[in-house]
Amino acid sequence: MLAMTAQPIFTPPVPTLARDGAGVVILDQTLLPFRRETRRLATLDEVAHAIRSMQVRGAPLIGATAAFGVAVALTDDADDTRLDHALRTLAATRPTAVNLHWALARMDARLRPLPVSARSDAAWAEAETIRAGDADTCDAIGRHGVALLEAVAARRNGPVRVMTHCNAGWLATCGAGTALAPVYAAHTKGIAVHVWVSETRPRNQGLLTAWELREAGVPHSLIADNAAGILLARGEADLVITGADRVAANGDSANKVGTYLKALAAHAHDVPFHIAAPFSTIDFACPDGAAIPIEDRGPAEVRSVQGLGADGRVQSLALAPDSTGAANPAFDVTPAGLITSILTERGASAPGRLRELFPEAT
Amino acid sequence: MLAMTAQPIFTPPVPTLARDGAGVVILDQTLLPFRRETRRLATLDEVAHAIRSMQVRGAPLIGATAAFGVAVALTDDADDTRLDHALRTLAATRPTAVNLHWALARMDARLRPLPVSARSDAAWAEAETIRAGDADTCDAIGRHGVALLEAVAARRNGPVRVMTHCNAGWLATCGAGTALAPVYAAHTKGIAVHVWVSETRPRNQGLLTAWELREAGVPHSLIADNAAGILLARGEADLVITGADRVAANGDSANKVGTYLKALAAHAHDVPFHIAAPFSTIDFACPDGAAIPIEDRGPAEVRSVQGLGADGRVQSLALAPDSTGAANPAFDVTPAGLITSILTERGASAPGRLRELFPEAT
Repeated sequence: MLAMTAQPIFTPPVPTLARDGAGVVILDQTLLPFRRETRRLATLDEVAHAIRSMQVRGAPLIGATAAFGVAVALTDDADDTRLDHALRTLAATRPTAVNLHWALARMDARLRPLPVSARSDAAWAEAETIRAGDADTCDAIGRHGVALLEAVAARRNGPVRVMTHCNAGWLATCGAGTALAPVYAAHTKGIAVHVWVSETRPRNQGLLTAWELREAGVPHSLIADNAAGILLARGEADLVITGADRVAANGDSANKVGTYLKALAAHAHDVPFHIAAPFSTIDFACPDGAAIPIEDRGPAEVRSVQGLGADGRVQSLALAPDSTGAANPAFDVTPAGLITSILTERGASAPGRLRELFPEAT
Repeated sequence: MLAMTAQPIFTPPVPTLARDGAGVVILDQTLLPFRRETRRLATLDEVAHAIRSMQVRGAPLIGATAAFGVAVALTDDADDTRLDHALRTLAATRPTAVNLHWALARMDARLRPLPVSARSDAAWAEAETIRAGDADTCDAIGRHGVALLEAVAARRNGPVRVMTHCNAGWLATCGAGTALAPVYAAHTKGIAVHVWVSETRPRNQGLLTAWELREAGVPHSLIADNAAGILLARGEADLVITGADRVAANGDSANKVGTYLKALAAHAHDVPFHIAAPFSTIDFACPDGAAIPIEDRGPAEVRSVQGLGADGRVQSLALAPDSTGAANPAFDVTPAGLITSILTERGASAPGRLRELFPEAT
């Protein structure tokens, strides 16, 4: 007799990451939303390249992919030299990604004590545990978060109108996503939902969100980032949910640049603003937003844009000459005072009370 | 001996609008910043199309162009039927721009009482008066507004850091611009200035601002619209100045979508936020922002982007399939409470005290 497990709230239409023999298969996200192609990664270098070049992206998905990268690297030989090389190579791909380092440290702790001959099987098993754990985390965020949408559905006719920013959906994880998990949970339950999808310049990750919502059959509309203020002022969104790249102990939350502007506008119009963030994103060692380092990326992203040409090819266009200076902060910090709640796998928390949900955190 | 006139604060490097015989020559702004081309408009329909398709854009320039459009339309025949048709056709081109209606009402008032045979010459003369008047207005806004930048320059080292949105510079007017007139006045006076130029999706008029600042030799950096919040939070702007498409009697101001988000962020960080608006943009008949109609444009702009290909050709790329829904409000309203002052040709005013500057307004 099989053990009873809860039905997942949502199954992604396409796996973002799956084992395939001694390799892994990924969706190449650099081609999305314009072309859907999978890639089989069969060597450590191929996995490292996939992470570095953002063929896989989204903090949870990066972490799980790196774990599988260790397994791929140990297929033929799993001695300490090989293990060290794998961990070092993968750690260097995105030096600031916190889930990446968390996943690699976990693989190291699991594999190092084992005899060399046992490491390959254990690596595949541990990577799969990390992948499945991420899916469970997304699921739990969805189960808790859907209550917010149910409350709206109970008091008004028409779809629940959710605004989001960037991409924190199934494409960024191994499951239902973080910010979008409550949306998928509502959709699964038959609650009508409509998502305002913000383009998210300069890298346009909102287009990934539009793509994944379409694949999942969830109604949505694309908006320019600039349109968030008037839509919130007009009362056209019932709540805002975004992901986070790092949440400080006091609840200040760093997320993709532009999140803060949406939070200001939501606050001005009494629209609830929620951050969806698994435990792995909460940095209890970081007291507040001022201590979160903000990555300034190069000007090229601001001066250019990628899209699909009339000939069906993905192309880059220049928006301004290379001589044009540009500033490109990749994240901003939304202060806890603008955040209604932080949605975690253990439930929703007032931003300042995260420790009560995670008393074991140091 | 010549009459003494004040030296203009700034002469645009290229005329945005000039009479050419029985037509007008414009800079085609849909091709900027990628290609600099002028177009000669010789019929009413060509002028209406130029306004509708945003070959000419910017409220003051639209108004002056519409005035010339009346003159163009009356070249062969200037009876009431023709005059009415011209006024109606031009009025229908853009719903939010109040200058358009102001200029058309002024042409109507000037021409209607005249004998039909005198209307054509009078139309050209009146249109030229409107054009020259706009240049003078820009100049006056610059002379008044430069005091704001001088005050910053007096108290800190380094350039005065101005944030703007959309394009309200010389390209949008027949003179030095509105929002950028104080910047050009400061530049002319030798005050160091640096302008944060917001891309202004979905139509990217910020790229026009970067282009015109480069043409004028004013230092600037391009930013994604999303970056405004963190730059203001970091104290990297000394003031924000934008234009307006319509200012209500109480000071609530409609401007390009995204302006409101900058105003919220400026307010949150005590950065002065100014609206530059000539008298013609102030609608004393409109009590407040709620009464300002907001143009919702089609979804195509949000789903696509224009830029320069590697082959040097201006191209459009798709960002999302045509089946993707999109909302595209073109403007938003910044409430008077977020506005430090409104810069007019008669000086700066608290938003609620505009009538004191313009007591003759009805």
